[in-house]
This record gives sequence, structure tokens and C-alpha cells, in this order.
Amino acid sequence: MAETIFSEMSRLAAEHDAINLGQGFPDTPGPREVVDVAVAAMHKGWNQYPPAVGIPSLRTAIADHQRRWYGLDVAADGGVVVCSGASEALSSAMTALLSPGDEVIALEPYYDLYAATAALLGARLVPVRIHAPDYALDAEALRAAVTERTKMIVLNTPHNPTGAVLSTAELEAVAQVARDHDLVVLSDEVYEHLVFDDNRHVPIATLPGMFERTITVGSGGKTFSVTGWKIGWATGPPDLVGRVLGVKQWFSFAAGTPLQHGIAAGLELPDERLAHLGDDLARKRDLLTDGLRELGLEVFHSKATYFVTADVAPLGVTDSLEFCRSLPERVGVAAVPNQVFHASPRGVETQVRFACCKRDEILADALLRLRKL
Amino acid sequence: MAETIFSEMSRLAAEHDAINLGQGFPDTPGPREVVDVAVAAMHKGWNQYPPAVGIPSLRTAIADHQRRWYGLDVAADGGVVVCSGASEALSSAMTALLSPGDEVIALEPYYDLYAATAALLGARLVPVRIHAPDYALDAEALRAAVTERTKMIVLNTPHNPTGAVLSTAELEAVAQVARDHDLVVLSDEVYEHLVFDDNRHVPIATLPGMFERTITVGSGGKTFSVTGWKIGWATGPPDLVGRVLGVKQWFSFAAGTPLQHGIAAGLELPDERLAHLGDDLARKRDLLTDGLRELGLEVFHSKATYFVTADVAPLGVTDSLEFCRSLPERVGVAAVPNQVFHASPRGVETQVRFACCKRDEILADALLRLRKL
Ligand SMILES: CSCCC(=O)C(=O)O
Ligand SMILES: CSCCC(=O)C(=O)O
Repeated sequence: MAETIFSEMSRLAAEHDAINLGQGFPDTPGPREVVDVAVAAMHKGWNQYPPAVGIPSLRTAIADHQRRWYGLDVAADGGVVVCSGASEALSSAMTALLSPGDEVIALEPYYDLYAATAALLGARLVPVRIHAPDYALDAEALRAAVTERTKMIVLNTPHNPTGAVLSTAELEAVAQVARDHDLVVLSDEVYEHLVFDDNRHVPIATLPGMFERTITVGSGGKTFSVTGWKIGWATGPPDLVGRVLGVKQWFSFAAGTPLQHGIAAGLELPDERLAHLGDDLARKRDLLTDGLRELGLEVFHSKATYFVTADVAPLGVTDSLEFCRSLPERVGVAAVPNQVFHASPRGVETQVRFACCKRDEILADALLRLRKL
Repeated sequence: MAETIFSEMSRLAAEHDAINLGQGFPDTPGPREVVDVAVAAMHKGWNQYPPAVGIPSLRTAIADHQRRWYGLDVAADGGVVVCSGASEALSSAMTALLSPGDEVIALEPYYDLYAATAALLGARLVPVRIHAPDYALDAEALRAAVTERTKMIVLNTPHNPTGAVLSTAELEAVAQVARDHDLVVLSDEVYEHLVFDDNRHVPIATLPGMFERTITVGSGGKTFSVTGWKIGWATGPPDLVGRVLGVKQWFSFAAGTPLQHGIAAGLELPDERLAHLGDDLARKRDLLTDGLRELGLEVFHSKATYFVTADVAPLGVTDSLEFCRSLPERVGVAAVPNQVFHASPRGVETQVRFACCKRDEILADALLRLRKL
């Protein structure tokens, strides 16, 4: 299997000492308490195996979070499994539920792991495209994508790379298809707290009849700005979550003990603190959006996540993959071509995703560098 | 898939407040420097994504370690991949190299992950038994186990659960079979530094013609007494290691950044320090072995690892699985039945594995409790 696009672009960024607006990770620390509690755990000697399913305090914190924020009744014991990042939650869930020949539907553009994991399992990812600039869900296209072999819909809201946030009406359309065809929904909600302005994240598991068929995936790394800690989770009904655990225990077995303690502390912060985690990022989204527009690019409005997508055609670009591969060396900036999130690049040949989760002066410097193009 | 035996026994231990001699993890801290460097990394803000392949300093430390200790010429760039524990190194390697219908040979008793992962992949684990009390390898049995479908031999030395350390002559017998039949060897060497007395660990990759067909797996958690950090690795020729990375990047993507820094510091400790990591453990092995013998049990000599195996038949036990399931409640001790490491329990129905990697007073207390039987 080829290197992931994130590895490739971060490698090129390092090689050319470029500003890395490719792979999504912040360059500022998250809540202090999170690091402090992890450090304290290490000093207390909490460095041995946690339960494969996750330490009790983190599972309780995750269940409480789902209840407080969304009114979801998740069982800390049985309804939560802590994983080595959201990546492992997603790959374990797909491995547990998909067989060779099965089909899995995903909104396109889609996070690359979904297609790679489907391929690894001999399953087929069936894309249903959402289009710039508004990325509205085409419910008829979704329904038409279902076949006898469809087992799962992978949903992703807030959506990477577009920054779309699915509305309740859109989620209801997905839910209806899932219920009608008895499909499992794997809902990747790692950007749940990085939502801007008046937009509101709604977990599909809160819709009627959906909790029992949905595996919801969250991320401590994304929520608390510690992407390198690799603490993610899956929540849902015990039968589905148990199957994720059944696979995950043979992948990494468990996730870093002291880091789990740190993330538990993060989830126990007052709701008020969590509610404002995206504020600064919204401002950065504006900074980057405005700057790219000043360069003459069309920029699609991002409602959430670390990312902003622009169309770089005005720069004379015809292939964003080629463009992104040369960008670090040419001007000292790294970005990700949106076409890698598509089964076919048709229609998105010139779209590029830029990460806005960087310090203001870094974003300003990146825009200055891009001006050279 | 069922709960792993380690999860089950650790859960029962917690439920009954029992001394946990089941799952293998120490209850004393490892080298101070390892924790100190990880803490410093967290305070420096090194909490974002590492490269999927591992941070450069850890990859260099791993390559240097293989050179210093074994004369192996591992490329820090291309010949090393850091994983979320040795578990992920093993499961990724098997996933990368095995297809449905393939056969993989393993010495029996075998670590449970090998068989579970083979099953997940639709491959078949073919056991070649080594027998108490000396656990000598039967080279003829090994050769006879090879068929047209054999792709891989999973080796494990120092050997869990028996504490056997394969001799150079035994390794040469394995190597000959691998070379003759063009097999890959996946060599699980996580206990490489936990070897007692005059026994010496020899990596099979050091044998003629073997480096190019061997994936060697190591563990920072086992070596430095931080089993909950989940930092392991695979080393070998770039073509094989690249295939492990190709899968692993879709499992957890990467392993905990600050913890990688800590383990790098551990591997950079003077060789003298590493050479004595097993000393204290050897004494504990004696303590537990003598104590179990005083209870009238036959105890098989352990040359390495965290473990000692005893035959509990003198206690009137006929099924070690049943025995281990009741032990936490009956006397407040947890242990692991060796039959779970076998395809068939025949001949090992009454063997039980006890972990010796606990504080002296804990081992003494456990022996006192076992005396009640
Ligand atoms: C796991 S590396 C990719 C990080 C990420 O979520 C992104 O950049 O889209
Ligand atoms: C990953 S949990 C099992 C730990 C271990 O290696 C053992 O107890 O054998």
C-alpha cells in the first residue's frame, strides 16, 4: 500500500522546511489540565497496561460527555471502547463488520482511511459525492447507491476535508436510508467540538431508531489539541461496540495509559470550556479564507474542522496533486490535494485543502509565501 | 471474537481484589530517564502527530540498538517502523503478508494474538509443539508442518509462556526450513532483554541468509517496564518493513509522540544498564519457582520473560482453565491457563502460567494465598 497523502506531504514539508498546512494538527497547546494530568499519571507510575477496552475513568468521562452534550445514553461499561486514535476505532469497526464483497457507502470527498481499509478487507467503497460550494447531501443519490451488498454507511460530520456540517434534515435522510435497508452507520465525529459560528453538530445517533445501528467515533487528540497522543474511541450499543473491541484487542490491544488519564481530565472540563474550543479556530478560518481570496482564489466556506478548501485554478493549476507535490519546494508551503479524497478526481482537479489550525503569524507567513505563485 | 484471556483474568483479578499474576506487567518502575524524557517532551509541546513510521530519533535509537547488540545492519530510514505496541507490529505484519487460505507455522504454546490474527485473515495457524520440561525444538516436526500453502513462520524467543530461549542450533534449524521453502520469519523478540543467568538471546535475523526474510519485533514497554505506553517496533529489510508500514498506517496511523521520545531515551542508555534489566527479574523467578515447588507443584525452569509455568495437577486440578477462572475468587490470585496458548489442550490441561514480575512482598503474599488450596 502506498504512503498516505498526509505522510507524503508532511515528509515533503520537513524536507523543504515548509510551513505545513497539509496534515491537520494544531501548533498551539490545548487545555493545560490535559497535559498536567497525563504527566501526573506518569509520575504516579500509571504506566502499565490499561484494560483493552479503556481505563474506567475515561470510559465514564466519554459516556458522561455523550449524555451531557447530546442526551445519548451510552453505557460506560459496554458502550464505549477506547482505541489507539480514531483511526483504530474506524479500522476496527470496518474490520469487524465488513466481509469481502460487501459495499460501504461514504460521502465523497471521504477521509482516505475509509477507502484504504475497505480495500484491505476486500470490500468496496461506493462514493456519493457532495459538491462545492455548499456541499448539500443529495438524498436521492444516497438512496440510489444502496445495493443488496451494502452493509454500512460511513458518515463524517463535521466533514473533512470540506468543513461541511450536516443539517438535521440531511442526517434524517441518511437515517432513513439506513433504517430502510438495515445498514450500520459508522459516524466519524472527530471534529464535533471544532464547529464555527452558529453551526451545531448533531450526532446521527440522536435520531429516532439510530442509536442501535450507529457506531460513533470521537477523538481526544482533535478535541484537546494533542493529535500525537492517539486516544480515540467508539461509542454505541454494546453489541456493536463489543465487535469493535473484539477486533481492536488484536490490533494494538490497548491505548497509552497515562494519555488516557489526560484525555479523561479534558472531557471532565466544564462544558463552557469545551463550547469555546473552536472559537480561536473560527478566527483562523477567516484569516486563511480572506488571505486566499485576496490571492484571487475561490474559497469554499468552511463551517468546522481544521480545514479550508480553495480552488487554485486561477493560479494556472490543472492538477492539484502535482501542484501540492511541488509546492513545498517552490514556495515553502505544504497542502493537500482534495482529489485524494475522491474515487475519481473529475470535477475537483484543482481543489486544495489548507489547514487553518496554525498560529496567526504562521498563517500570515504562509499567505505571503503563496503570493509568490 | 471473545475477550482475550489477559482481559478476562485481569478483570476477574480486579473484581475480586486479587493479586494479578496473570497478564504480564511489572509493578515497579523502569529506568527513570524514560519517564523523565517523555514528561519533558509533553511539556515542550511535542504532542502532535509523529510521522506514521515513527519519530526519527526513536528510529535511529532502534537501529543503533540492533547494531550494538546484535551486529544487525538495520536502516533507521526504511528498516524500522514504530508501532502502537508490539501487538500492532505483529498484527500489521501478518495482515500485510498473509492471504485467505495461507498457512503460518508457530511454535506451540503460542501467544494468543498469532492465532486470532490468522483467523481474522482467513489464514490457518499450524502449531508445532515444544514440550515441557525442556521445550526443545523438534526440527523434524517443524519441517513436516510445511505445506504448499505455508507463507510464514512466527517465531517467539525468548518464549512466552514457557520462558524458553532458543539456542543457535535451534534457530539454525528454523532458518534452514525458512530458506528451503522461501518463508518469511516473523520473530517476536519482545523479551530480548529479560533473559536470566547465562542464557543469551540470539535474533534469528543474525543467521546467514535470514536478515532479508525476517521481520523482527521489539517492545519498549517490555524492555523499560512501561507496558501501558504501547510503543513497539518492527525492523528488517526495507521491502518487508515497508509492507508492515503500509498496513499499520491504516490501523492506528502512528504511536504516542511523547512516549516515543521516552523510549528513545531508554534505548540510548549505556549497554551496561540494558544488560542488567533482567537481573532483578531472575531473582523473582527463583522466588516464585521455589515457592511454587514448596507447594508441591512441578515447576518448569524459566530462562527468560516475565513468566514461570507450573503443573497444578498435585492440587487435584484437571482443567487449568476452570481452575484459573475460579482462582481469583477462591484465594485472591489470578494466573493464566497455558492451554489457551494451544490449539488443543491435550497434554497441558493442568499447566498454569504465573507472572514473576512483581514486588517480592507481593509474590510472597501470592504464595501464602495459594497455600490455602
Ligand atoms: C492521521 S493523519 C491525518 C490527519 C487528518 O485527520 C487530516 O489531515 O485530515
Ligand atoms: C497485551 S496483554 C498480554 C501481555 C502479555 O504479553 C502476556 O501476559 O503474555
